[in-house]
Amino acid sequence: MSDFRYSVRVQYVDTDQGGVVHHAAYLRFLEGARVELLRSRGIDYRRFELEVGKGLPVTEARVRYRRPARFDDQLEIETWVPIVNRAKIRFDSRIFRHEELLCEAEITCACVLLREMRICSMDERIRAAFE
Amino acid sequence: MSDFRYSVRVQYVDTDQGGVVHHAAYLRFLEGARVELLRSRGIDYRRFELEVGKGLPVTEARVRYRRPARFDDQLEIETWVPIVNRAKIRFDSRIFRHEELLCEAEITCACVLLREMRICSMDERIRAAFE
Amino acid sequence: MSDFRYSVRVQYVDTDQGGVVHHAAYLRFLEGARVELLRSRGIDYRRFELEVGKGLPVTEARVRYRRPARFDDQLEIETWVPIVNRAKIRFDSRIFRHEELLCEAEITCACVLLREMRICSMDERIRAAFE
Amino acid sequence: MSDFRYSVRVQYVDTDQGGVVHHAAYLRFLEGARVELLRSRGIDYRRFELEVGKGLPVTEARVRYRRPARFDDQLEIETWVPIVNRAKIRFDSRIFRHEELLCEAEITCACVLLREMRICSMDERIRAAFE
Repeated sequence: MSDFRYSVRVQYVDTDQGGVVHHAAYLRFLEGARVELLRSRGIDYRRFELEVGKGLPVTEARVRYRRPARFDDQLEIETWVPIVNRAKIRFDSRIFRHEELLCEAEITCACVLLREMRICSMDERIRAAFE
Repeated sequence: MSDFRYSVRVQYVDTDQGGVVHHAAYLRFLEGARVELLRSRGIDYRRFELEVGKGLPVTEARVRYRRPARFDDQLEIETWVPIVNRAKIRFDSRIFRHEELLCEAEITCACVLLREMRICSMDERIRAAFE
Repeated sequence: MSDFRYSVRVQYVDTDQGGVVHHAAYLRFLEGARVELLRSRGIDYRRFELEVGKGLPVTEARVRYRRPARFDDQLEIETWVPIVNRAKIRFDSRIFRHEELLCEAEITCACVLLREMRICSMDERIRAAFE
Repeated sequence: MSDFRYSVRVQYVDTDQGGVVHHAAYLRFLEGARVELLRSRGIDYRRFELEVGKGLPVTEARVRYRRPARFDDQLEIETWVPIVNRAKIRFDSRIFRHEELLCEAEITCACVLLREMRICSMDERIRAAFE
């Protein structure tokens, strides 16, 4: 697990006519958490893309929606890296509203050379940050 | 599998600064395909919500991104229902650009009473449409 | 003007393949600012909808994009209410990155009875909060 | 005015908890209409960006929301170009559900050199297409 936590407030635009947060909005929340987790480990993802010329596109997303989040909820996202190797990095997350578990997710990313959008082996900076 | 196909054109807003379609945009494309698959089986989802008072919220999404889609691509989505029972309905999809497989997805939905957002057993109309 | 300021970090999903923030993303940022401005004046918008049964849908949006925001930028949004009367409330905003003005917006909202989505005169709580 | 029409089906993700289409979603619909209007005049916008190295970012958006669109509505968008000159191109639109006018919009774009994201004079191909 992890002691890293990211907080996000649900916006009106995140809801749908069912009166709850649309399932696609969670991918936005999870992306915000990953970028901040990287920052907390010394990786500024903007500079990583610009200076190293590599990116970490999502190759697999798996999300289980337990209970609906609602407009104006303050969500807390726990995110950690259970696996990082030459082929991939996985970010696992649990999204809470107070103590209540709303959502669990596993997001797997590869490492690519951005200019050619071609897969390369995982960047050493990323591996070092989580090993 | 299925002979149902849904077509969607990638918009500029669907792309990100990596120059390809953002991973969250695929959930939008897949949602469009599900609604049209339901319509092709005689279920008008808008009327289903309004008249029956039930909905089919996503309880699990699993998406594997094989190759990136790009702006203005004309995507073809094959969608079918491999499982429908009292507890859930699953929609499986494969997204193609011409013959090239870009993405595979399994989206699982439950059936809920919309007013209380409480899970109920799968509506008979939905089961009948896919059995 | 106003001394109310709202801060938002640009996410990857907000960008497009032009390498900058997509123009539609600013409406999301501005919505976040409006909800927090209301909260700072004692209006919890979620409770306003639930308890009063009214809403403040956007009836006109005008946005001028001066310079592009980019991924990971920390944006500061100044928002204030230049007009509130029986017919409408207008929220004006300026979006900055440090000292640099990126965007100006005027968002006009009406007041509606949510159940019927029918326009009513501006709620007294809203008027009182900004007069 | 124009005889150009673009059609779009409202998706569930476009709605919000007010039960209607969120105001930001219209910018997506309008963008789709602009790209197709350009195509109808012989401009493939993807190739324009790639081959010419220029883009048409939005510099001003003005949208008036008359009546709400709803989930599954089939919207028809009329789009035309009232102004094109060295400095800008404006796309005006009216969004209808059958005969009912829901929304009016004016979207102004500049021409930029994409690599530097620097404003240039309007590309001759764009001017020729609408003059």
